[in-house]
Amino acid sequence: MRALVTGGAGFIGSHLIDRLIGRGDEVVVLDNFSSGHATFLSHHEPSGLLTVVKGDICNPEDVAAAMSLNIDCVFHLAANPDIRLGTRITNTDLNQGTVATYNILEAMRIAGVKQIAFASSSVVYGEDAPLPTPENHGPCMPISLYGASKQAGEGLISSWVGTFGLQAWIFRFANIIGARGTHGVIFDFIHKLKNDPTRLEVLGNGLQEKSYMEVGDCVDAILHVMASTNEPLNLYNLGSHDTASVRRIAEIVVEVTGCHDAKIEYTGGDRGWAGDIPRARLAIEKMLESGFDVSMNSEEAIRHTASVLLEEIGLEETT
Amino acid sequence: MRALVTGGAGFIGSHLIDRLIGRGDEVVVLDNFSSGHATFLSHHEPSGLLTVVKGDICNPEDVAAAMSLNIDCVFHLAANPDIRLGTRITNTDLNQGTVATYNILEAMRIAGVKQIAFASSSVVYGEDAPLPTPENHGPCMPISLYGASKQAGEGLISSWVGTFGLQAWIFRFANIIGARGTHGVIFDFIHKLKNDPTRLEVLGNGLQEKSYMEVGDCVDAILHVMASTNEPLNLYNLGSHDTASVRRIAEIVVEVTGCHDAKIEYTGGDRGWAGDIPRARLAIEKMLESGFDVSMNSEEAIRHTASVLLEEIGLEETT
Repeated sequence: MRALVTGGAGFIGSHLIDRLIGRGDEVVVLDNFSSGHATFLSHHEPSGLLTVVKGDICNPEDVAAAMSLNIDCVFHLAANPDIRLGTRITNTDLNQGTVATYNILEAMRIAGVKQIAFASSSVVYGEDAPLPTPENHGPCMPISLYGASKQAGEGLISSWVGTFGLQAWIFRFANIIGARGTHGVIFDFIHKLKNDPTRLEVLGNGLQEKSYMEVGDCVDAILHVMASTNEPLNLYNLGSHDTASVRRIAEIVVEVTGCHDAKIEYTGGDRGWAGDIPRARLAIEKMLESGFDVSMNSEEAIRHTASVLLEEIGLEETT
Repeated sequence: MRALVTGGAGFIGSHLIDRLIGRGDEVVVLDNFSSGHATFLSHHEPSGLLTVVKGDICNPEDVAAAMSLNIDCVFHLAANPDIRLGTRITNTDLNQGTVATYNILEAMRIAGVKQIAFASSSVVYGEDAPLPTPENHGPCMPISLYGASKQAGEGLISSWVGTFGLQAWIFRFANIIGARGTHGVIFDFIHKLKNDPTRLEVLGNGLQEKSYMEVGDCVDAILHVMASTNEPLNLYNLGSHDTASVRRIAEIVVEVTGCHDAKIEYTGGDRGWAGDIPRARLAIEKMLESGFDVSMNSEEAIRHTASVLLEEIGLEETT
């Protein structure tokens, strides 16, 4: 198989490519390297299975160029990685999420590419959903602009399935964490402690409670579900069995980094920023019924991630 | 109150404005007159309550200009009126639906306008929903590009409520029909009989079965629900109690037009076009519980509409 992975040089994309190339697939990466890194992929150069196209999913010509390379299946992972940015520059998620997903789908239609897997998110459910939230929850009322763009992407894909005969897998991710993370709470905490090992500022009251999934589990789940389902449109939550609080994450990061003197300070309020959802947990029965289970619970994934990100980021310059 | 009505010169918009001006509200219309007509509004000129801004919701400057006129509440009705066009020019609904709705919301944020009512559609539910379909059905998987743009508009509005403190009413419409209709099955049938009173071609097998709501009932329901609800985000299906088949509509239009010799011919297949949903019926318990009920069932609305559209369109040139 020959796969196109948008955002392939990024966090989740590079792990997916490890699996795809590991099983012998050819991979074309489309990435603008805004938050991705060539070093996340350089170990695949000797394989001869990797083609990297530097380009932007917001540019239809770049998308068409990548799509013309005899693609069998698209893994559309690229998006604005900074959910908080949407609040300040309000067309960020519209352009990098919704319109970019349209660009991908239209290029697929023109090139005759028939399969897509899409990285959606638990944030499409919004704030009032029951926990754990099943795939058939409705109405989905996202409260962040990022969430709105993920919902819009799902709808575009669904309409391409219904109108043009595409086959699609939509995955609603829990918080995905692990090696090569380029954003998120653990990444932020380590950078804060690198700047000042005596204090750790936590956005909100720390009682935010969400489900975390290790990135290796995430990409294994994607490939397992795709191999075991064959409907025109397949929708799956991907997450772990439990949750962890931001307070607990702060404690683990302090412990793993060895910054035992760091004072953990909370900015207060029930959420980190406007559009943040304080409590999130996905129902994962559908994923489990497909025959896949995670290898780590939320706290194990957090501890593992803190450890590997500490190694990647380092504390040296400031300690 | 001073309302901005996008698409105010169109079918539903002009009926809404009849009610708003009838109760003494001031109204600003933003319309590009692509399918709207000045004659739909000209009877309000003497009132002094109507301001018409000719402009396009796809143009942020036009939207900002209209939004700067001391608006209290936006009724966002404008959209691509031709659901079938989306299949041929695939960015039609993206631009005239999704991006245009973003333009409206962003202009509201900048101007400090805090209330919006949005015309969404039953087509957001997609094809596999139970009938009648309640508001909390999920997942919503639209099969038309028009449906995808309505879902995206809902998500954008929901995210503006969650992030910027907007208050919103989202209405998922059944098939709305009535005087001043500018598109839709009855409109099409009358035009076909005007061209050739001896035959009536029906797209599909005629067994498509949907719910129809008279436009006067629709705009009354909008204003009733807005007056009786006050959540940050209010979601309501608007429809009637029953359904009618396209076959029955064809018979009624033939009867009302007096083209009794017209042979009704079916193109076959279970739907009119790619992205058409053959069977649709909204659960309207929530609307009924708000204290509003419709004055016409589907067949009464169809017969009324055929009669008034016949008067508006006329058959003269061809008979």
